[in-house]
Amino acid sequence: MYEPKIAAGDDLGSYCQELARRARAASIRLSTAPGALKNEWLCAVAESLIQDGDRIIEANNRDLSCAAEGGLPNSSIDRLRIDDGRLRAIADGVRDVAGLPDPVGRVLDSTLRPNGLQVLKVSVPLGVILFIYESRPNVTVDAAALCVKSANAVILRGGKEAAFTNTALVQILRGALVKCGLPEDAVARVETTDRAAVGQLLRLDSLIDLAIPRGGESLIRRVADEATMPVLKHYKGNCHVYIDRSADLDMAERIVVNSKCQRPSVCNAAESLLVHCDIAASFLPRVGQALRQRNVELRGCQLTQRFIPDARPATEADFAEEFLDLIISIRVVDGVESGIEHINKYGSKHTDAIVTNDLTAARRFTQAVDSSAVLVNASTRFNDGYEFGLGAEIGISTDKFHARGPCGLQELTSYKYVVYGDGQVRET
Amino acid sequence: MYEPKIAAGDDLGSYCQELARRARAASIRLSTAPGALKNEWLCAVAESLIQDGDRIIEANNRDLSCAAEGGLPNSSIDRLRIDDGRLRAIADGVRDVAGLPDPVGRVLDSTLRPNGLQVLKVSVPLGVILFIYESRPNVTVDAAALCVKSANAVILRGGKEAAFTNTALVQILRGALVKCGLPEDAVARVETTDRAAVGQLLRLDSLIDLAIPRGGESLIRRVADEATMPVLKHYKGNCHVYIDRSADLDMAERIVVNSKCQRPSVCNAAESLLVHCDIAASFLPRVGQALRQRNVELRGCQLTQRFIPDARPATEADFAEEFLDLIISIRVVDGVESGIEHINKYGSKHTDAIVTNDLTAARRFTQAVDSSAVLVNASTRFNDGYEFGLGAEIGISTDKFHARGPCGLQELTSYKYVVYGDGQVRET
Repeated sequence: MYEPKIAAGDDLGSYCQELARRARAASIRLSTAPGALKNEWLCAVAESLIQDGDRIIEANNRDLSCAAEGGLPNSSIDRLRIDDGRLRAIADGVRDVAGLPDPVGRVLDSTLRPNGLQVLKVSVPLGVILFIYESRPNVTVDAAALCVKSANAVILRGGKEAAFTNTALVQILRGALVKCGLPEDAVARVETTDRAAVGQLLRLDSLIDLAIPRGGESLIRRVADEATMPVLKHYKGNCHVYIDRSADLDMAERIVVNSKCQRPSVCNAAESLLVHCDIAASFLPRVGQALRQRNVELRGCQLTQRFIPDARPATEADFAEEFLDLIISIRVVDGVESGIEHINKYGSKHTDAIVTNDLTAARRFTQAVDSSAVLVNASTRFNDGYEFGLGAEIGISTDKFHARGPCGLQELTSYKYVVYGDGQVRET
Repeated sequence: MYEPKIAAGDDLGSYCQELARRARAASIRLSTAPGALKNEWLCAVAESLIQDGDRIIEANNRDLSCAAEGGLPNSSIDRLRIDDGRLRAIADGVRDVAGLPDPVGRVLDSTLRPNGLQVLKVSVPLGVILFIYESRPNVTVDAAALCVKSANAVILRGGKEAAFTNTALVQILRGALVKCGLPEDAVARVETTDRAAVGQLLRLDSLIDLAIPRGGESLIRRVADEATMPVLKHYKGNCHVYIDRSADLDMAERIVVNSKCQRPSVCNAAESLLVHCDIAASFLPRVGQALRQRNVELRGCQLTQRFIPDARPATEADFAEEFLDLIISIRVVDGVESGIEHINKYGSKHTDAIVTNDLTAARRFTQAVDSSAVLVNASTRFNDGYEFGLGAEIGISTDKFHARGPCGLQELTSYKYVVYGDGQVRET
């Protein structure tokens, strides 16, 4: 069973080194494990989550008590809570991952060369992933499921608010690894709340292949600054909806309201509305009313204020802000080019949408907006692994190197070239 | 025409910032340039290389004189030299790139979601690439051709030995950009030999998307250590050929000799030979003779010395060494698993080959050897963009993030999601 590895007096640096070294060794064994075995593990995890539900909820209650004593805001306490319903949802999510195709060992591309060499590009795991995240404990299980399914070992570093819950969950994850004959250290947890441990781990690029931070911007910046290995990340989602002259205004209103209000605290919610000047007079009053009815605070440019008199004046800072709240900045622009320019200047390369019926505008917008996802006539809220059909996602990347946009199982793999010949040698 | 941008008294930091800022602006214009225009540029470059050949050769002669005065070794002087024949080869290479398919704007994957959303994964350029390389001046043109064809702007930083030649070549590259109505700053050159300029540029991750170092291990380590942006690289190529028990010994000898001797100074040349103990007695004497005839120095383990008595004893350091010369280390191993273990321990994850007729051994070797290219019954020398059918290559990566193995046009791109709907909003 699971044994905490950090004894009193242990040196933090050597603890982190040992943790990473064990994960690396586990990742090598895991890299050639059959898909059936990985799925067996996922099913065993789902089963244990339900069977040992009482133990998890008990541990969770200890975290909740500490959180209440520590004066954590109610919204954070709610995110921390695990009840029977949430546990069933987590278990269902794990079973869903079992149902996804194995991302490892697929032939991604192949060529038969004129000299008879068969060149195959074959997907392989990345190796060891360091996953650093804040309080939601369901993420512990989701991340481990995705990493192990893609044959990567994972080192989990959750928020200290969820320490008891995460300990219980990791016991289940590791117990199931042992039961299935998979290497226990394929799922590891950093068992100290010492913040310096993260810094130590981020230096170990010879043992850890990728760091994935999930949480607030300051956490992500710290990880990106300190990491010596690649980092899969986005800092924020300052997402835009641009309403073109030719837009269907009913559709436009529906998309703006959904992008802004359906879940305002998440990264793919809209933070800014851009409206073509030719339709400002007809569209702004109605969208203003629709948003106001949903308690959205409006911050507009001067032209916006002409059509929505009670909008507060928007500052430069408002256009750059990710509110994550019921606030929206609004600007009237003189066409698709100005809209693109505004988005590429103020946006965060995350998710941006155009509402239009003009094919030229749609093509230009999708080509020129430099964001991980660009949508035409659909809500920004769709930039998501499930919604794009990737299955579960481990995060969203706004970088251009490796994966971009929602990252699921496939994005947790690399590839190698495997070449079959019958004695070919090179002449030139 | 081309104007040097660094005036006396300019501050190096602001010079580098300005260089990168201009490249970034050019990359945005280039990102939506039609493929026909990029090909027109490539053809114009090829034409100018021939038409202005005298000017290039004259500039090259100045570099050659300096090199001779500076006491550069003859092999380096030969690498530096450009004559009519080499110029024609460079021009032909550029025309070949024009003939390759446009790597930008391709739909890499697509899904039609149950709600009617059409999700497209579309290739896009990376942005701005900083290319840092040593003396061979043909690389200047090759790198610019690949970067511009993939709609990336490139900042070239060549070795100071080739400064006159590179200045002349970059004049041609930029002149052709102007002629074709493409942004001149899509190809830029660092016009100071101050080594601190590289350090300054490597800090500009908000303007430069990728650094590619090509040269000796110390250059690459410096770039990897200092870069704040991703780096496409391999440190070295300690490549192995493992001869399995079931190998055809004629084929094995041919592959070892080709892997080691065909061009010993390059990264995909073999540096180490592993031989299954069951065939050591029959294979080692003949391969020893074949290598000795080609002036290869043999450094073997104790068992090797039993069958090749004049082999020098191999040290641990020999097994880890990339000789880049007519030297090979040899070890007798007790089977495919020991061979895999040796390669994963001493190798550099670059290129490794097995010679075998045993399907189980081939499958196990290709799965477990953790290298960018694993070959069965073929020379290690085939790990190359041309040989794998990618067209020209800009380098080889041994990392697992983004591209691995030979990197051509496709590996110089990222992607975005482009999503078409007809008013879809998200319910959950």
